[in-house]
Amino acid sequence: MAGLARGLVRGLAYGGDYNPEQWSDDVVAEDMRLMRQAGVNLVSLGIFSWVVHEPADGELDFSWLDRTLDLLHAHGVAVDLGTGTASPPMWLHHAHPEMLPQDGSWEPLAPGGRMGWCPSSPVYRRYALRLVERLAQHVGDHPAVVLWHVSNEFGGGNARCHCPESARAFRRWVEQRYGTVDALNAAWGTSVWGNRYTAFEQVTTPAGRTTHNPGHLLDFERFSSEALLAHHRAERDVLRRWSSRPVTTNFMVGFGPDVVDYARWAPHVDVVSNDHYTHGDDPWRHEDVAFAGDRSRGMSGGRPWLLMEHAPSAASWYAVNHAKAPGELARHALGHVARGSDSVLFFQWRAAPAGAEQFHSAMVGHAGERSRVYQDVVALGDLLGRVGELAGSTVVGARVALLHDDEAGWALRGGLRPVNGMPYAETARAFHTELFTRNVTTDVVPPWVDLDPYDLVVVPGLFLVAPSTAKAVAAAAARGATVVVTWFSGIVGPTGAVVTGGHPGAFRDLLGVLGDEFVPVDDGVPVPLDNGWVGRRWSELVAADDADVVARFADGTAGGGAAVTRREVPGGGTAWYVATDLDEASLGDLVERLLAEAGVAPVTDASPGVEVVRRASADASYLVAVNHDTGAPGWVAAHGTDLVTGDRHRGRVPLALGGVAVVREDAAPGSRSDDQ
Amino acid sequence: MAGLARGLVRGLAYGGDYNPEQWSDDVVAEDMRLMRQAGVNLVSLGIFSWVVHEPADGELDFSWLDRTLDLLHAHGVAVDLGTGTASPPMWLHHAHPEMLPQDGSWEPLAPGGRMGWCPSSPVYRRYALRLVERLAQHVGDHPAVVLWHVSNEFGGGNARCHCPESARAFRRWVEQRYGTVDALNAAWGTSVWGNRYTAFEQVTTPAGRTTHNPGHLLDFERFSSEALLAHHRAERDVLRRWSSRPVTTNFMVGFGPDVVDYARWAPHVDVVSNDHYTHGDDPWRHEDVAFAGDRSRGMSGGRPWLLMEHAPSAASWYAVNHAKAPGELARHALGHVARGSDSVLFFQWRAAPAGAEQFHSAMVGHAGERSRVYQDVVALGDLLGRVGELAGSTVVGARVALLHDDEAGWALRGGLRPVNGMPYAETARAFHTELFTRNVTTDVVPPWVDLDPYDLVVVPGLFLVAPSTAKAVAAAAARGATVVVTWFSGIVGPTGAVVTGGHPGAFRDLLGVLGDEFVPVDDGVPVPLDNGWVGRRWSELVAADDADVVARFADGTAGGGAAVTRREVPGGGTAWYVATDLDEASLGDLVERLLAEAGVAPVTDASPGVEVVRRASADASYLVAVNHDTGAPGWVAAHGTDLVTGDRHRGRVPLALGGVAVVREDAAPGSRSDDQ
Amino acid sequence: MAGLARGLVRGLAYGGDYNPEQWSDDVVAEDMRLMRQAGVNLVSLGIFSWVVHEPADGELDFSWLDRTLDLLHAHGVAVDLGTGTASPPMWLHHAHPEMLPQDGSWEPLAPGGRMGWCPSSPVYRRYALRLVERLAQHVGDHPAVVLWHVSNEFGGGNARCHCPESARAFRRWVEQRYGTVDALNAAWGTSVWGNRYTAFEQVTTPAGRTTHNPGHLLDFERFSSEALLAHHRAERDVLRRWSSRPVTTNFMVGFGPDVVDYARWAPHVDVVSNDHYTHGDDPWRHEDVAFAGDRSRGMSGGRPWLLMEHAPSAASWYAVNHAKAPGELARHALGHVARGSDSVLFFQWRAAPAGAEQFHSAMVGHAGERSRVYQDVVALGDLLGRVGELAGSTVVGARVALLHDDEAGWALRGGLRPVNGMPYAETARAFHTELFTRNVTTDVVPPWVDLDPYDLVVVPGLFLVAPSTAKAVAAAAARGATVVVTWFSGIVGPTGAVVTGGHPGAFRDLLGVLGDEFVPVDDGVPVPLDNGWVGRRWSELVAADDADVVARFADGTAGGGAAVTRREVPGGGTAWYVATDLDEASLGDLVERLLAEAGVAPVTDASPGVEVVRRASADASYLVAVNHDTGAPGWVAAHGTDLVTGDRHRGRVPLALGGVAVVREDAAPGSRSDDQ
Repeated sequence: MAGLARGLVRGLAYGGDYNPEQWSDDVVAEDMRLMRQAGVNLVSLGIFSWVVHEPADGELDFSWLDRTLDLLHAHGVAVDLGTGTASPPMWLHHAHPEMLPQDGSWEPLAPGGRMGWCPSSPVYRRYALRLVERLAQHVGDHPAVVLWHVSNEFGGGNARCHCPESARAFRRWVEQRYGTVDALNAAWGTSVWGNRYTAFEQVTTPAGRTTHNPGHLLDFERFSSEALLAHHRAERDVLRRWSSRPVTTNFMVGFGPDVVDYARWAPHVDVVSNDHYTHGDDPWRHEDVAFAGDRSRGMSGGRPWLLMEHAPSAASWYAVNHAKAPGELARHALGHVARGSDSVLFFQWRAAPAGAEQFHSAMVGHAGERSRVYQDVVALGDLLGRVGELAGSTVVGARVALLHDDEAGWALRGGLRPVNGMPYAETARAFHTELFTRNVTTDVVPPWVDLDPYDLVVVPGLFLVAPSTAKAVAAAAARGATVVVTWFSGIVGPTGAVVTGGHPGAFRDLLGVLGDEFVPVDDGVPVPLDNGWVGRRWSELVAADDADVVARFADGTAGGGAAVTRREVPGGGTAWYVATDLDEASLGDLVERLLAEAGVAPVTDASPGVEVVRRASADASYLVAVNHDTGAPGWVAAHGTDLVTGDRHRGRVPLALGGVAVVREDAAPGSRSDDQ
Repeated sequence: MAGLARGLVRGLAYGGDYNPEQWSDDVVAEDMRLMRQAGVNLVSLGIFSWVVHEPADGELDFSWLDRTLDLLHAHGVAVDLGTGTASPPMWLHHAHPEMLPQDGSWEPLAPGGRMGWCPSSPVYRRYALRLVERLAQHVGDHPAVVLWHVSNEFGGGNARCHCPESARAFRRWVEQRYGTVDALNAAWGTSVWGNRYTAFEQVTTPAGRTTHNPGHLLDFERFSSEALLAHHRAERDVLRRWSSRPVTTNFMVGFGPDVVDYARWAPHVDVVSNDHYTHGDDPWRHEDVAFAGDRSRGMSGGRPWLLMEHAPSAASWYAVNHAKAPGELARHALGHVARGSDSVLFFQWRAAPAGAEQFHSAMVGHAGERSRVYQDVVALGDLLGRVGELAGSTVVGARVALLHDDEAGWALRGGLRPVNGMPYAETARAFHTELFTRNVTTDVVPPWVDLDPYDLVVVPGLFLVAPSTAKAVAAAAARGATVVVTWFSGIVGPTGAVVTGGHPGAFRDLLGVLGDEFVPVDDGVPVPLDNGWVGRRWSELVAADDADVVARFADGTAGGGAAVTRREVPGGGTAWYVATDLDEASLGDLVERLLAEAGVAPVTDASPGVEVVRRASADASYLVAVNHDTGAPGWVAAHGTDLVTGDRHRGRVPLALGGVAVVREDAAPGSRSDDQ
Repeated sequence: MAGLARGLVRGLAYGGDYNPEQWSDDVVAEDMRLMRQAGVNLVSLGIFSWVVHEPADGELDFSWLDRTLDLLHAHGVAVDLGTGTASPPMWLHHAHPEMLPQDGSWEPLAPGGRMGWCPSSPVYRRYALRLVERLAQHVGDHPAVVLWHVSNEFGGGNARCHCPESARAFRRWVEQRYGTVDALNAAWGTSVWGNRYTAFEQVTTPAGRTTHNPGHLLDFERFSSEALLAHHRAERDVLRRWSSRPVTTNFMVGFGPDVVDYARWAPHVDVVSNDHYTHGDDPWRHEDVAFAGDRSRGMSGGRPWLLMEHAPSAASWYAVNHAKAPGELARHALGHVARGSDSVLFFQWRAAPAGAEQFHSAMVGHAGERSRVYQDVVALGDLLGRVGELAGSTVVGARVALLHDDEAGWALRGGLRPVNGMPYAETARAFHTELFTRNVTTDVVPPWVDLDPYDLVVVPGLFLVAPSTAKAVAAAAARGATVVVTWFSGIVGPTGAVVTGGHPGAFRDLLGVLGDEFVPVDDGVPVPLDNGWVGRRWSELVAADDADVVARFADGTAGGGAAVTRREVPGGGTAWYVATDLDEASLGDLVERLLAEAGVAPVTDASPGVEVVRRASADASYLVAVNHDTGAPGWVAAHGTDLVTGDRHRGRVPLALGGVAVVREDAAPGSRSDDQ
């Protein structure tokens, strides 16, 4: 991944998905006026415009695109140009129905909608690349175009395909990965239930009803992600041949596991961009913003990334689609910026009256210019203009790493487990929440990153762990870091097979424990520890062979046994093991202890409910602060100028109830300084 | 629809579905005795008798039918004769499996059961019409036959078919409706997500997995209803060629949207007939009887209709199938009659020991003559005999119209909405309940009826509204009526596209409001208004540009904004808007206010829990009264003779606990008088 | 079924499923040491080893098997040898995908997994029998082999197949059963809904969407069980040709209805063997052990049976997989032995790191020898060694029969019922629980067993009853037994058709009642009786024509009518009818009354929470006692020697908290004596 995140536009990018092909010329003219009024400087164009460019097989026509690019350019709006391949034209569906992806019961996706193509379909690939090539040739150097946007939300509908083409491709992938059938049999443990293969041609995708082999399931997830990645790379390579503009595709980073493995995709985009939609019924949705932001930054190697889509107000796919509360638009936008985004982009500019998303919110709603959201959008545009110098700066001061890996999540869900249906990353988010509320900047990173910068390494429910990860985590502890590993981490290796000899296999030696048997606990039943902490859902029989017992299970089948252990690593730091799912208060206590031990402090002082993150460039240092408390005004400790108001403060910068501030600090530390 | 509802039999029709082909001769002989004892005068015969008439392809044999018709005629029982086409014979299924309807995953319905035929299947059509023609030729003038019963519960199993024949027919239908592909693209908004068609041949039924286009879904519902209607009409036309008897088919009118659009079917039957089954766990099932009755009458243009099926006691398809409580048999029967039915017909006469409905209740249960239900059936037959002069009279005095349209319900469910999974017509039923408990006679009508007779027009959650409806409702207000429109009404037009410019697009001008943004609320969270009323599930940002604010939202994102508004229409009546789902008490208050404003009064006074409706003929006027309170006796204010007891009363007619009365009023008003 | 249950090994058999093909030689060597240490004397081998024996079509290679049998034999471990046909090799799946079973939507089972074969597939049958024949020829007389284990858990995945082969076979089966189409039509009641067949070729399996005919569904269950049985018998017959060893296949007896009809299979195995897995969230799982044990014994005609599989600790297919509590391993093992098992066998010996069951517990867990479970397994092996003389003895003293029939369960679920979704055998288990807690030994038997030995016959919710059963039950009452029939028993006959004339048709005369109408009650709504008892879910209108009313319904639609009746059978015993689902306390009262009336006493006195059963041989009598109370020590009244401790006691044998005892009684009664 090249470092092209800055410089698309002057200041922070502001705008959203724009679909003028849905509208008449007078509406488009109105759009230009409203965009200027709102300070929009970047739109994503042409994401679903294949059929506009190619209304019939091979008949390319870019006249609409030319007109639109010229118009936007004339109005000072830069363009993130979609390749348009997300939605194949209906004429192509009609000609090639075999192109549709098929689910695990071999039912095809319907034509229409989005992503109606098998990632391994050679027919689709050929048509898509022909379009992309002609498009790049035609407008690859248009001055309005500053970024390429490959397809759209890869995997949204075609993440897992079981059609005959995919089955063939999967067999090739398996053969390539394992070389011999014996190696395949060993990896998947096919001797169990007598399912040994004797030739690669016998391998199928894990479709149909049965209790599938977990190794098989895991590899199919990997294959599927890579099949989509191959398509992304194919389009990207065509674009690079004909255009100098950077290339991205919009991720959908959540808690994970995601539909594709974004962390492993990240090296293949020039800039990480992300679509983020909160869950309306999540009371901590601002923390969800922070988690996704910390994770997006973790994928982009700390460099600025782009918030490619988020909702101006309500979505429409939840059971109840909540409108944003007053001020939430700005708070979420700044929340993303605080975590390293150089953009605030929305889906979508103008609400469509028809189509599947007719009730999804937009910057300009059905009621038009007068709508609340548009008024807030104008105000936010003004605010972003004031803080534009943030662009290009990076988040600094993260001394905590929280390891996250989609493969661990895939492995967790792909088989029968002591507790089934457990979502991956719940413990990760619980830890992140405790760090978030304490304003401790945390990098959510894939396990292969360099752990040297970190004084606290959190390994939360990382079910699958590669030997190299185990080694790196142990090395961090050996050089002095505090490491904390939680229940059901390090259980299986890269093939999904249990590391035998005692749990958690990957970390047994580091932690100095030997786990023998899992003792899950029903939902709602507390798991008391003897130090007053309370766990949930899980206990274990753990022998603390070479570790101190911090807390023991107070009762139950694991009663009297170790629940939380701590090992002082000879000549180094410490390695903690937490053998239950601590409740919020207990986890808060633990996190306090870990932070104290690791010597990690908050970014700065702030009143309760205030989020604060530091971004810095070579020239300046900034505090981005958001007051999520809508019941009381707040403050953040700083000396500097609030770019939002222009006021200078020493000691405490005030925050309105539900308000935001961006403080350019008086004593500018060096860029990317880690010393606060 | 011709006005043939009366005259099938002398007095009210009484009986049910009769399937003597399931029984031996001695049981049939017993049936004759028991029918006479119960006062049965009409049975539905031959509904599933295709295979009896045609045991092999083309070998017609009506000897069983001839015998049975003669026998019934000899016993004074008239016949509603089924065409028998609901269940194709197994030999036909075996010969033509392609005839089976396919669901949205292309899984065929199983052969056997009922309605195992694609409405667009030419094969089925040919076989069915051949049978109907031979049947009509053979018994079309039999004196026992007084009514034709086409098929059975159209759509029950084959309401939506996605087989290749249906796909072809749907393409033809779309082409016929829209003429050009451009018009189709405009109607469905296919530019969204790049799903534009370039030829009609690309159009499919909305089968398979995806987020389908809502316009596509809505038109498929319309097509499907019309495809079934075409079959009904084809059978009807054959019958008319060979028989002078009127033709009906049994509707399944509920709250809507129904499987087919009965209101649009009604002109194609000679008399509206309805099957009605209460939901055992519905504590207000007597109100459900009233709603369905008021709606059936609304479809029949106020003329008497036929209750073709209801259950003598328990059904068998619910999770828990409740038996009818003591007296409920008579109360429900009279409830239907009160709303305009000229019949009390049951499914079924005698309980079958085998088959899918072996535990469905019957007039003669498994225990035979001695069973409670049969005893009640005999008593009811006696009662109906006493009130037979009601036959042919019509319900009078309805000054409230409640608009209902299946298309609105289809549109509501066919796409992503601010709140998903909301059932249509809940607000309609809530309004109806308040009117019902106040004995205010209400017509539940499709939106295209003449609104002139009405002083109060209720538009409850009518999501889809045609411009002509908007105009008619505005005209009603302009001429002095009180109009009330509730949340999420008038949002989309006939294609399912949002009427832009501010909600509710269809009624914005009439109501004098501009709705900007929907603010749904989670289930169970109250939405307090500043006048003490309480809403649920919904709030909105509404500007009362040209209306008075009756109540405002007390808190939340919409807090301080208008919740209930009222506009005095210049020179006319008033137009109310209700922007939340009022709870029962609040809605009761609102309804009181609306009734007072519109000057609408109850039919007459009655004690609590008593339902009363007036029917009148040219010669007489009747009050049909049902005491739904089973804990206390009641009364209804009237001067006249209770036909049930023969007693004359002045002032108050007493009602036994759970009892019924039919009062012939002393001062007979003119037929269909509306002046009470 | 021959009486070969004893004599496989010396004493009780101890061990489990053993899959050395998954492991390296050094692990296998370790296994030999650990087995000896644990006292293992029997393993099940080769259950999934087809591909090991036949790595390519027709290339048989038994070298691995020979080596393994020799090794086990050398270490004193006998072998229950699997035929290996449960999992066809992947090469066979690849060559014959048409062999996969198809569900009711015709979706095939995936290849791999287990039981991926249609029971009616001639291709599979040919391949399977070829393997079995070669296997039996090769090792049929190996001294290690003491038992044949046909396939594995028949029906687990292929219980119901709707593929074309199965459809053909079902048609043949139906023709064979009914002879003529008229007889078929009469049996299934196809005149209902006009579904009469006119030729057998029109018959399909009840696949696809519709409300299927209940007789059709019931016969398809029977056919499916018999199709699997036919395969079992085919393998068995081959084995018998080449080997003198007894043959079994492992049942999965639960509450029923089971995937196949084990009671009707039992005559076709030489010894009944059962797999039993408790439900982790069942607080009475020890009672579940007892129920399954009493039922397994009921199938084996009272002879010892084999516990072929149970879990050493947690399973992995539940939502939350509970580990066994301390001591539960021994308590459950002894619970099975108490009910007549001559073995304690587990799935599985050693936990696999990979494959579908990687987290299922094992005798040797992932942590190896040191694990808690293995320590408990060693202790249990020691304990079983001390009580080995139990082997061959039989459970004695059962004077209560509880009738159970999978056909009744199948019939119950295969159609629309007054209450839908009711699980079969809930009332059976409720009765069994009351008898269990009172230490009244009960035989759970199919209805065709000789009822002569029983003084109390319980007929709990036996929905389908054959005339012969009705006659036998009546005969039991006539000769003096107490009979109790509960609600919704005896409603339908063998074809699934209701016995008309009044419920419960099969028992109307015996009980002296005439039930007219069912009045189900919603979950959670109590059904009070006038004697203080409380029912649930069900009431009825019952006329006690020839019976005494013990209790009446206190309110509701059935209020005032009979709820519990008792008829003194002239010159004989009594016949009770219970027309509601009594709650625990009420049922306990009833059971006390029934036991008193029938003169049935507990096995012996014991402290609360102690389970005790008597087994006896020709030479000795034993009390097997388990203290399920883990909060307090207990005792059982006995004179004799506790074989576990070696201590002799007179009066009370003490039981540790959660402990077990096996008492050889001083005064040995005769073998199978029934006089205590």
